[in-house]
Amino acid sequence: MTEVDVPESHPRYESLLTRHRIEAGVEKGITSKQGLIAQGRGEAYDYLLGERTIPSADEAARVAAAHFRLADQAVVSVNGNVAALCPGEVVELADATGADIEVNLFNRTAERMERIADHLREHGAEAVLGLSADGRIPGLDHERATVDADGIGSADVVLVPLEDGDRAEALAAMGKTELVIDLNPLSRSAQSASVPIVDNVIRAIPNITEHARDLRDAPETALRDVIDGFDPETALGTAEDAIRSGDLD
Amino acid sequence: MTEVDVPESHPRYESLLTRHRIEAGVEKGITSKQGLIAQGRGEAYDYLLGERTIPSADEAARVAAAHFRLADQAVVSVNGNVAALCPGEVVELADATGADIEVNLFNRTAERMERIADHLREHGAEAVLGLSADGRIPGLDHERATVDADGIGSADVVLVPLEDGDRAEALAAMGKTELVIDLNPLSRSAQSASVPIVDNVIRAIPNITEHARDLRDAPETALRDVIDGFDPETALGTAEDAIRSGDLD
Repeated sequence: MTEVDVPESHPRYESLLTRHRIEAGVEKGITSKQGLIAQGRGEAYDYLLGERTIPSADEAARVAAAHFRLADQAVVSVNGNVAALCPGEVVELADATGADIEVNLFNRTAERMERIADHLREHGAEAVLGLSADGRIPGLDHERATVDADGIGSADVVLVPLEDGDRAEALAAMGKTELVIDLNPLSRSAQSASVPIVDNVIRAIPNITEHARDLRDAPETALRDVIDGFDPETALGTAEDAIRSGDLD
Repeated sequence: MTEVDVPESHPRYESLLTRHRIEAGVEKGITSKQGLIAQGRGEAYDYLLGERTIPSADEAARVAAAHFRLADQAVVSVNGNVAALCPGEVVELADATGADIEVNLFNRTAERMERIADHLREHGAEAVLGLSADGRIPGLDHERATVDADGIGSADVVLVPLEDGDRAEALAAMGKTELVIDLNPLSRSAQSASVPIVDNVIRAIPNITEHARDLRDAPETALRDVIDGFDPETALGTAEDAIRSGDLD
């Protein structure tokens, strides 16, 4: 038994755990009202996908892991929903890959930034970026553009789970290798990604970690092969097909 | 200009108005956290539908209006999301059809019941049922089963927009003519309905009102023809097709 009072074997365990975590995130001042609505949109797409990691999403997670391995500087961007849903999983990914963690909010307030940073530290994060706010993403208005200069600002690989479309496009336009987790394959975030992972963040992040561990001793040529064999358009098309033919209930 | 600061001609007007109302509902203590997540699921299905009233949903709304016209006693059931999204539209429907309004919450607390009743009265409702709580829907545990004996308890026609699946099934099992508004055609609520209306509640309720006005002087035989020409399975199938072939973005 864990933080929700149902056994892990319960068929709705993952869904109940997700609900519990996102509601707790609201209580803690981490998740916004807009974040709850976004969570519901994600639930609908996940139902359509059959609440499973489809093979193309698993492949994309492996490609993301290869990018983390080859990165000069990788950052995992964390917003209110990601912090609520998988704080421990984000810390584990950062530990496994040597990536930095940066808090990055669409509706940025100093209070929420601090609460999310605290929440991540409670889950084992040592350093949390995002509070310096001394860098900017070109092409966005001031509030939306703010990042840390030595975090997302200078990173060559950025994982942005559940990112807003405008910001995902602006990050891609900076030439960064952008890894996106998004359940809607036709969202602008998924479309602008170097590596779109059409999966639930609660499944995708531990899956990237697992692939990163598996690829720990892989030579650079093998990592390049993993990356070169991946086509984002094909992955998005496969995910769209899975959603359209999936279970609506 | 209205309650949101964009013109009605704005392409995202309806969506922005909806967001504004649901967030205001949270501020007022009307809409729950679960309600916000449910709103997000609805948004995703509505995107897939193309955010429009498809012809089969318009036909279903007309059939619902015919049922209101022929009812001995009709009740419009209102939960936290319906109250936040379309309180004035619910009052107008009740006025146009002679139906009663009953507050009916999945997570029932005396405080939310009162707040929703007050909110409906602010939007012109004269009588609001649901507070007596002296009736029960058979087959549900106590908290979920509570209704007013002289409201949903005795009604022959009940409109339940955005209803929980268990309760929708239990109401249908009571032999009531159940009119359901739900954007997911494969939800148990939609599946158990006499008349499933696969549409956004913010469009569907005014549409039922319009049809009820149009059918005001229709003879009983004409109303029966409208009802007899409707097949819920066909309507659900058409809606599912529209969602699967619709615009994922």
